[in-house]
Amino acid sequence: MGDVAWIAVDWGTSHLRAWLMSRDGAVIEARSSAAGMGTLERGGFEPALQALVGDALPAPVLACGMVGSRQGWAEAPYTAVPCAPPGASEAVQVPDTALNVRILPGVKQTKPADVMRGEETQIAGYIATHPGFDGVICLPGTHTKWVHISAGEIVSFRTAMTGEMFALLSSQSVLRHSMADGWDDAAFMAGVDQTLSRPEALAAALFSLRAEGLLDALPGDAARARLSGLLIGAELAAMRPYWLGQQVALIGAETLSDAYAAALAAQGVPCHTAGAQDMTLAGLTAAYTQIYGEAA
Amino acid sequence: MGDVAWIAVDWGTSHLRAWLMSRDGAVIEARSSAAGMGTLERGGFEPALQALVGDALPAPVLACGMVGSRQGWAEAPYTAVPCAPPGASEAVQVPDTALNVRILPGVKQTKPADVMRGEETQIAGYIATHPGFDGVICLPGTHTKWVHISAGEIVSFRTAMTGEMFALLSSQSVLRHSMADGWDDAAFMAGVDQTLSRPEALAAALFSLRAEGLLDALPGDAARARLSGLLIGAELAAMRPYWLGQQVALIGAETLSDAYAAALAAQGVPCHTAGAQDMTLAGLTAAYTQIYGEAA
Repeated sequence: MGDVAWIAVDWGTSHLRAWLMSRDGAVIEARSSAAGMGTLERGGFEPALQALVGDALPAPVLACGMVGSRQGWAEAPYTAVPCAPPGASEAVQVPDTALNVRILPGVKQTKPADVMRGEETQIAGYIATHPGFDGVICLPGTHTKWVHISAGEIVSFRTAMTGEMFALLSSQSVLRHSMADGWDDAAFMAGVDQTLSRPEALAAALFSLRAEGLLDALPGDAARARLSGLLIGAELAAMRPYWLGQQVALIGAETLSDAYAAALAAQGVPCHTAGAQDMTLAGLTAAYTQIYGEAA
Repeated sequence: MGDVAWIAVDWGTSHLRAWLMSRDGAVIEARSSAAGMGTLERGGFEPALQALVGDALPAPVLACGMVGSRQGWAEAPYTAVPCAPPGASEAVQVPDTALNVRILPGVKQTKPADVMRGEETQIAGYIATHPGFDGVICLPGTHTKWVHISAGEIVSFRTAMTGEMFALLSSQSVLRHSMADGWDDAAFMAGVDQTLSRPEALAAALFSLRAEGLLDALPGDAARARLSGLLIGAELAAMRPYWLGQQVALIGAETLSDAYAAALAAQGVPCHTAGAQDMTLAGLTAAYTQIYGEAA
């Protein structure tokens, strides 16, 4: 292992990821564990970090995500919009540890009330790697965020629980009996069309998946893809002010981002995509550079 | 125990209810157990029935609900709309048992695809106890049904998974952290207003419950009631063709029916209410009378 200058950490509810970074900004090694915030008591954070990257400590650590929530290791209070994605000056030093650990805050919006933790660092990464970017960023996931960026600042944002709804409905509701593991592009697009044009249709359209499974032997792949389409279509209807007439940058897992891109392309909205982990690392690197100065 | 002429049985996914009936149509005794269809293998139905009402057998049994599904005791194939609620002539005799058990079928609709099992018997009960009823019946529950009745027939119907969505979101999603057990009428009505007037708002409005809990200390009672209101408002938006300018008969649990009645009253829609178990028993009694003739 080369000389570790610092450790970039993405610490969410269900995962802990760390990158051992060299002085010139290169990744020496990437590691991850399942020790997400949701699995830890307050006293469990330092041991979890030691278990993952103990051999590289006491290199300074810069972290983002739910680790900075009230239930996390140390609370990093939200920064309010409009604001640049929080950076070095807003990072909170974790007390009561001999380690040098800083946590980047999340971002809040008062009206309508909304919050993010972790996505703000991906946004910082996107802005750092796309200087001068102005427009809309969508971060598809469990809680998909739509973010309006102007002059390097987060102006406003909204969250849709589309990913969590899909997980609950496809694996825990009566619809689970109608689902298979595969996918069907046409069924996905049909679902998007239905709720994007008539968002009120969602309530009745969901149970139709079950009924068509019973009566028409609707294939499980088509049912799963249409469920995703119905939910994403309803989300796009809610978020129309964000994407209408815009270019959209999608930051997320590839398969999910591709689904959003297809749905938006059908509305004439061009999309760029970027990987969520790449952007997290770019955002952490930008903040680290603010703290410790340019590499070398 | 008096002389049991027959046994009325409501056998759903999660419950088994039986009424021991006298020859003149009176309830001698009501019993119930947790031996719902969802807990039973095919060979488990007869023992479950014996365990609950063995002392009254071999009196004839007339049952409705999921017991007649493909995964039930014996399949009673759906009757297709438009149709009167299935009665004596469509009841299926359970084979391979020395007992005399008949099961009433559910009802299906081809376009849009939809199904019901159990509710058709409540509808039969409502028609039997309200002769000449023409209009709309709403059966709030896990899967709420909206049913158009004309000249004693089910003309069309639609299902909304509102109850199941509420259960999943309030107890299994991130919103569970923001929920208390109580209720807040004003918050409920505010939720209904929001999604009934702008159904596309649902996707973003859900996560606001969490964000307002974090940022504004939204009380858990208000969060729970507004979640219910948002979902019921979205359902009412989908079902507008059913209730607009109509009277609505609500058949369901009292608290839930009251919530629907309040939401509909705000739209100028008058409601009547009837108890779900009362209507099930009335429907089973009407069908029994068709089979065995009038009492006495």
